[in-house]
Amino acid sequence: MSLSFELLATDGLARRGRIATAHGTVETPAFMPVGTAGTVKAMMPQSVAETGAEIVLGNTYHLMLRPGAERVAALGGLHKFMNWPRAILTDSGGFQVMSLKELRKIDRDGVTFRSPIDGIQHRLTPERSIQIQHLLDADITMSFDECTPWPVEKEDAARSMRLSMDWAGRGKHAFVDRPGYGLFGIVQGSTFPDLREESAKALTAIGFDGYAVGGLAVGEGQELMFQTLETTVPLLPADRPRYLMGVGRPSDIVGAVRRGIDMFDCVMPTRAGRTAQAFTRRGELNLRNARHRDDPRPIDERCGCPACRHHSRAYLHHLIRSEEILGPMLLTWHNLHYYQDIMRGLRAAIETQSFGHWIAAFEQEQGRGDLPPL
Amino acid sequence: MSLSFELLATDGLARRGRIATAHGTVETPAFMPVGTAGTVKAMMPQSVAETGAEIVLGNTYHLMLRPGAERVAALGGLHKFMNWPRAILTDSGGFQVMSLKELRKIDRDGVTFRSPIDGIQHRLTPERSIQIQHLLDADITMSFDECTPWPVEKEDAARSMRLSMDWAGRGKHAFVDRPGYGLFGIVQGSTFPDLREESAKALTAIGFDGYAVGGLAVGEGQELMFQTLETTVPLLPADRPRYLMGVGRPSDIVGAVRRGIDMFDCVMPTRAGRTAQAFTRRGELNLRNARHRDDPRPIDERCGCPACRHHSRAYLHHLIRSEEILGPMLLTWHNLHYYQDIMRGLRAAIETQSFGHWIAAFEQEQGRGDLPPL
Repeated sequence: MSLSFELLATDGLARRGRIATAHGTVETPAFMPVGTAGTVKAMMPQSVAETGAEIVLGNTYHLMLRPGAERVAALGGLHKFMNWPRAILTDSGGFQVMSLKELRKIDRDGVTFRSPIDGIQHRLTPERSIQIQHLLDADITMSFDECTPWPVEKEDAARSMRLSMDWAGRGKHAFVDRPGYGLFGIVQGSTFPDLREESAKALTAIGFDGYAVGGLAVGEGQELMFQTLETTVPLLPADRPRYLMGVGRPSDIVGAVRRGIDMFDCVMPTRAGRTAQAFTRRGELNLRNARHRDDPRPIDERCGCPACRHHSRAYLHHLIRSEEILGPMLLTWHNLHYYQDIMRGLRAAIETQSFGHWIAAFEQEQGRGDLPPL
Repeated sequence: MSLSFELLATDGLARRGRIATAHGTVETPAFMPVGTAGTVKAMMPQSVAETGAEIVLGNTYHLMLRPGAERVAALGGLHKFMNWPRAILTDSGGFQVMSLKELRKIDRDGVTFRSPIDGIQHRLTPERSIQIQHLLDADITMSFDECTPWPVEKEDAARSMRLSMDWAGRGKHAFVDRPGYGLFGIVQGSTFPDLREESAKALTAIGFDGYAVGGLAVGEGQELMFQTLETTVPLLPADRPRYLMGVGRPSDIVGAVRRGIDMFDCVMPTRAGRTAQAFTRRGELNLRNARHRDDPRPIDERCGCPACRHHSRAYLHHLIRSEEILGPMLLTWHNLHYYQDIMRGLRAAIETQSFGHWIAAFEQEQGRGDLPPL
């Protein structure tokens, strides 16, 4: 195992851990901001670090199309390219490629597709995906898999999962082991417990540095997602990090940590920041709303981000109405800061065995809703 | 005089000075980044300060329409609203209102116009412009004037200039004198030396805290602009700051400082930053150009901005091609930093009586053109 994982504390199923990578340690539970095309949108990399993020996610699909994995490698790898000296996890490209629908053709060996940017044909196989992630210099490489859509017939879910397990084995073979670098397998099987079990067993038999739960947050809803975690997570090795892909809203993250998940990624805080939405202790709010127009208060007077320390809701509202770039910049920063606040809170709660109290307080605050008007 | 100006050194006609405002001092020659709608586009206010800017320009026209001067005042003024604790100069709104053409009607008393945002009718008079700038809490208020277009018949230029002089007197009467706050008059008269002289005499007779040269950089070209400065600047009081409005490219600024100008504003560095253009010691370049695609070098290895300290041309090129917000963020920062580098260089050169040598070196470097390909 080339990527070390230390389990520091537990509280129920919730875990407090530490991953040591070639580019620094990652305290878990951890949220990874999404840096799709080599940038966490609307953020300076130093600002991403200031929010407390220790690892970001890069997208194989986007980077292979532009600027190209070989080009990033020639320029010194993704860390240097985007000036992010800390850890990077890359996805496998599978999720985006499968979403191309008309533009892609899948076979047992891999996927052929056309670039939406310039129409040029590309091919992704398990081996090529691992190679691209190596070229990018990802600290954590993800197995190339098919993200099973939802809803799905059980027969299709089984076929899809077994293809992914075959690809996981091929990826493991292709992965070049290096100190501080690791490869994660991805459990599939949709919401069918026996398929999830089959998938988890297949992956643990191969042996990975960490285990992701894929194929969730694709429309099944929070209840079914949590049920699937409850049957899947106990099947994963306790001494390896567990990553719930593409999740999610604050309550999704908190509920998944409670069920034993250690790592998360989601575009939600960054994307919301570009559409005037703020995630806060007291739920979500939209700064475009006219009720903020004269409000001298910050989004959250207890938040330590620059948007909350230095600016009123009225100013943020003005920036959004005026379509000023600073609006997305400040709101993205706020949202990422709030997400990291949640992770800091979760980690401290597990360390002090007060996870239950923390969740109760979290849910109570979220339930209060936004501040009443002045 | 409520705004103090100290003349620290001269070299030929070039001046090294210091303006003391209610929100800090401004070392001159000074370049003011343009913060049109209460934000220097794509920049955090702290980042604007990091480039070395000590004063920014705010636009009366934009702010009166949205969010409204009374609203900004109720929220504590423009410094607090945009979190810029340093000095602010506001223009009078005249320039933008006159540009509305079909949407505005001018009379001897002022201008009536419709908001392009919501169609609501507004009126600007010399008194209302001064009042708005007071509500915004501008350290430096500009007289309401008509920016004479170019080219223009002499008769029209004279009529326009005399109207502006009338408005300047009314504005002076309306201005509320406060310690650290000042009102500038604006010399008009197009490129006609006798009209410029008449205008300068009219303004000095009224008496202002500083004198701007308006109606230039409107299409007349650098040579005619410099000629007009050569006849106009000597007519302005030596003990007051001189401001050339809306200028310009680096060579415009350097040439105007040589002719005795102390202050500048221009959208060029910020606007160019949003269209992939960089201003550098070795001239202008466009990062969208394919020749930067594999270039690991920074824009300028001697520049201290984050774009140059941390990122390659290849990365900036990638951001621009991918339409990532970080592209405009980094290029705007670079351009503002480079403009402030020029101002730092000019100030040091005047202090050390080496202005001639500095200009020769500046022109030689600019003439070299961008780095050859690797």
